[in-house]
Amino acid sequence: MVEIISVGQDLASGQTQNLGAAVVARELLQAGVEVDYTTFVGNREDYLEETLRQALLRSGLIFVLGGLGSHRYDITKKILSRVLNKRLVLDYKVLDKIKERFEKRGEVMPRAEEKQALILSETELLENPVGMSPGFLFHQGEAVVIALPGDPVEIKSIWTQEVLPRLDLQGLKKVPSDTLILKTCGLAESILEEWVRSVVRSQGNTTFSLIPYGEEVEIAIEVKGESLEEVEALRRDLEYKLRRKLGSYLYGTGEQTLEEVVGSLLVLNRKTLAVAESCTGGLICHRLTNVEGSSRYFERGIISYSNEAKMSLLDVSPEIIREKGPVSAEAAIAMAEGVRWISQTSLGLATTGIAGPSGGTPEKPVGLVYIALAAEGRETKSERFYFSGDRNFIKLRASQMGLDMIRRHLTSL
Amino acid sequence: MVEIISVGQDLASGQTQNLGAAVVARELLQAGVEVDYTTFVGNREDYLEETLRQALLRSGLIFVLGGLGSHRYDITKKILSRVLNKRLVLDYKVLDKIKERFEKRGEVMPRAEEKQALILSETELLENPVGMSPGFLFHQGEAVVIALPGDPVEIKSIWTQEVLPRLDLQGLKKVPSDTLILKTCGLAESILEEWVRSVVRSQGNTTFSLIPYGEEVEIAIEVKGESLEEVEALRRDLEYKLRRKLGSYLYGTGEQTLEEVVGSLLVLNRKTLAVAESCTGGLICHRLTNVEGSSRYFERGIISYSNEAKMSLLDVSPEIIREKGPVSAEAAIAMAEGVRWISQTSLGLATTGIAGPSGGTPEKPVGLVYIALAAEGRETKSERFYFSGDRNFIKLRASQMGLDMIRRHLTSL
Repeated sequence: MVEIISVGQDLASGQTQNLGAAVVARELLQAGVEVDYTTFVGNREDYLEETLRQALLRSGLIFVLGGLGSHRYDITKKILSRVLNKRLVLDYKVLDKIKERFEKRGEVMPRAEEKQALILSETELLENPVGMSPGFLFHQGEAVVIALPGDPVEIKSIWTQEVLPRLDLQGLKKVPSDTLILKTCGLAESILEEWVRSVVRSQGNTTFSLIPYGEEVEIAIEVKGESLEEVEALRRDLEYKLRRKLGSYLYGTGEQTLEEVVGSLLVLNRKTLAVAESCTGGLICHRLTNVEGSSRYFERGIISYSNEAKMSLLDVSPEIIREKGPVSAEAAIAMAEGVRWISQTSLGLATTGIAGPSGGTPEKPVGLVYIALAAEGRETKSERFYFSGDRNFIKLRASQMGLDMIRRHLTSL
Repeated sequence: MVEIISVGQDLASGQTQNLGAAVVARELLQAGVEVDYTTFVGNREDYLEETLRQALLRSGLIFVLGGLGSHRYDITKKILSRVLNKRLVLDYKVLDKIKERFEKRGEVMPRAEEKQALILSETELLENPVGMSPGFLFHQGEAVVIALPGDPVEIKSIWTQEVLPRLDLQGLKKVPSDTLILKTCGLAESILEEWVRSVVRSQGNTTFSLIPYGEEVEIAIEVKGESLEEVEALRRDLEYKLRRKLGSYLYGTGEQTLEEVVGSLLVLNRKTLAVAESCTGGLICHRLTNVEGSSRYFERGIISYSNEAKMSLLDVSPEIIREKGPVSAEAAIAMAEGVRWISQTSLGLATTGIAGPSGGTPEKPVGLVYIALAAEGRETKSERFYFSGDRNFIKLRASQMGLDMIRRHLTSL
């Protein structure tokens, strides 16, 4: 059995530790190993102690995430040393590194931070390149126990270099398996489920789940078989069939994001982009610029929140604002063409709508959004959407459909 | 004892259910009740069954979150009916509502959705105003079991109207307690810890935790006492002392965000704002426009990613770009003054820096960010920061310090 125990702040005040558990579970799944038990013990010492004792009885591989820091409520090392009867010793090499980090920032290490350099005796250290507390690994009877920081970024940075090479996962793999992850945009979950089911049905030992988020649905298909070769063949066959079935609704695989796919397509087609946002308020620019190297194709963005900004920066005519309103197909088209013109880019994307919760009318309700894409040598058209949800969700959905509009344009070139 | 069991997608493919658990834990804490056990069972039927049986033996109040939907892996109702020996019956009222929702969107309800209207016999329904699946509550021996959807937004919408009035929490409150939440910006966690400890130390039964996120640290202090009056007095006293100690590092309380505080200050002082972003790429505008009613003070944003955009839109002189570079104090100041000038707003904020991971040099490393705020009748100054972390984290930290600069300016007026 494989088990994750998350230690951390009270669940009520923050839940970052669970993101850590998700990272470990996903990494293990990619190596063909499923997690059997996941427990969040917060910072309650008795609960951690009880869970650890139970885990040692039933599981061969135990991850303890979080609680390695210098705070009073960082209880992992204390409880591990109590349950396992191991001493805590100060590791001077680790201590020096922590001191160095503080010095680099021109600060003196507070005394309390020393606690991070306390290490259980007889353990192997796992170096942490991005954080202060290293992880560690030790054997307890038949079981392997691995303690890692709770932060997902730190876990990822430790995993490949330090954790994976030390794990012997062969005995833990139940059956050869692999996970196919496909990402779709613009198709309702219920329709998608029928489509995926119709393709997956014919494959014996295959299960799938759909994870919707905004206008996006991730399809996770777990493929099992007798051998790794069989799994690989099944996976390829399924991917081929699903690509045919889903067509342009499919935008990527694995951990790709829509903004990464859009970025790659812009680079591939040597196109540049400028964006004019009203209701999305900067979210599209923010997502585009989350991608490394986006300065190669993203030229500028205009968040034209006021009518004045739409008119003076994007050359939207006062007549359109007066007669059609700032939330209209005409305004979206003028904004897209305007931002493309002033930026001299290949493409201009624009959004205008009502993100709410106030500002809606019977004719123009909250959730109404117009999105337009201007491109060389074709008439600019606008699409109209009605999004449900709260303000943030409407912004998210509109940003998603805006990015998807660019993707569809570039893949149909 | 109080217990939360989260059902849902595999932890590896998505962890939204845990956000739901955080909402329930926080709501209970506000009512003075602590959660004793938190388990995430994924969609494994045997694990849910085992955990439920254990919970019924030890806990008086059990929440089961998620797994109420129509998918094959939505297992909550099935396992509840098995463990408790209750039948599942189709509730036609619920079914009609689901059908209605589909009709509103011009779709026909897929047959599979019927499953959402299956309800355990002898339970009380908890109406869900924003989602399809209602929650439900029932008594099992001494215990109260409450099943809710896993989505945090749905839980919040059900909680006050439907859940809270049905709970008798008196017997579950251990001691009278209250939680004081203070939000700070700009102060290192280790220094903050010493400060808070020096204030809290003198109070007997008080514990605190710090939750850092980017440049922000949330202080959660749990105050306990003999009576609610005593708790209230202690809480007020602590808040007074901490406000004095933390000074302008403290920006808000409870669930307030920095962008909300900045928005309120702008409204209060009748100021308007325009933003020019380079390295933050739209994140500051996105955060500002996440706040309802932000169109009252947020006039426009310019995401001037290219040098051309900095020069043509913001009037940054070619000499500054050539001699000082686009990442320089001079450029930040020119951008802030430029965006304020073209927008005719009270304030102009600008960021320019190197978000990485590439593009750094020995003189201008990744993480170097200049932020400037232009305001009427005073010289514009620029602040220099060195942020650590990956691209997204550098963007987050820079956006935080930019917003905080506006807050500090407005509170010192």
